[in-house]
Amino acid sequence: MRWSEIDKMNCSVAKSLSILGESWTLMIIRSSFLNCKRFDEFQKELNVTRHLLADRLNKLVENKILVKKPYQTNPVRNEYHLTRKGEALFPIIMSLTHWGDSWMSEQQSPPLKLIHTRCQQRTQPQLVCDQCGDDLNARNTIASTVTYN
Amino acid sequence: MRWSEIDKMNCSVAKSLSILGESWTLMIIRSSFLNCKRFDEFQKELNVTRHLLADRLNKLVENKILVKKPYQTNPVRNEYHLTRKGEALFPIIMSLTHWGDSWMSEQQSPPLKLIHTRCQQRTQPQLVCDQCGDDLNARNTIASTVTYN
Repeated sequence: MRWSEIDKMNCSVAKSLSILGESWTLMIIRSSFLNCKRFDEFQKELNVTRHLLADRLNKLVENKILVKKPYQTNPVRNEYHLTRKGEALFPIIMSLTHWGDSWMSEQQSPPLKLIHTRCQQRTQPQLVCDQCGDDLNARNTIASTVTYN
Repeated sequence: MRWSEIDKMNCSVAKSLSILGESWTLMIIRSSFLNCKRFDEFQKELNVTRHLLADRLNKLVENKILVKKPYQTNPVRNEYHLTRKGEALFPIIMSLTHWGDSWMSEQQSPPLKLIHTRCQQRTQPQLVCDQCGDDLNARNTIASTVTYN
């Protein structure tokens, strides 16, 4: 199978990666969460070619992860805002951040500081079971595909 | 900047993606969580070329995400097991699964069924604040980089 055919797989991870798996796409979304909105802001943040950035932003708009909102007319200039579908990527970006901080960081890399506005504390994201509230991890979770009758 | 230089960025997401961002790598890790261990099991699951699969498995071993364990001698054959660093990728795979289920799934795709062994319930992963236990999302979390004095 080719990587470009990954959306054909009957697998939720594969379907996510059919959009998110292209180079720079997750970095663009991470920049959106850090409040980048305008083309030049993304380019300054990521230092990629205009051609590549335009391609990735267009695909994210096509896939309803970002939505264009004009901030200027004549000529029209757009900002790129996260949609609800885009905001729902937050746990993916958070878990990539947390793993990078824990396992890939050298001392000179300052980790991202996260403040939870509800409790005003510096927070670390934690994955829990929505039924009992306890920690959810590789050793206490069994995955299987559902068979419908 | 080229994608291959992304590990130079002072960003935890970038550091994670410098390993995880290559095509098929996250699919291999997802297969490990679904109990694939042997080369042929990965190949059957993912249907990629032996050359590509060997390359990605070797990189995951080099980066200490998988570890080789022999299951046969003469000739030596290895299984690939997740290390602690690899098991720590669980929240990333779970959040990719959950987003795919919620936003990319057509009705015919059966979602993955997750059982939390501690409470024996069918579970949905939930991201919470480790300080107060409340929901952590894009609208109630502020991210900033830390400055060291």
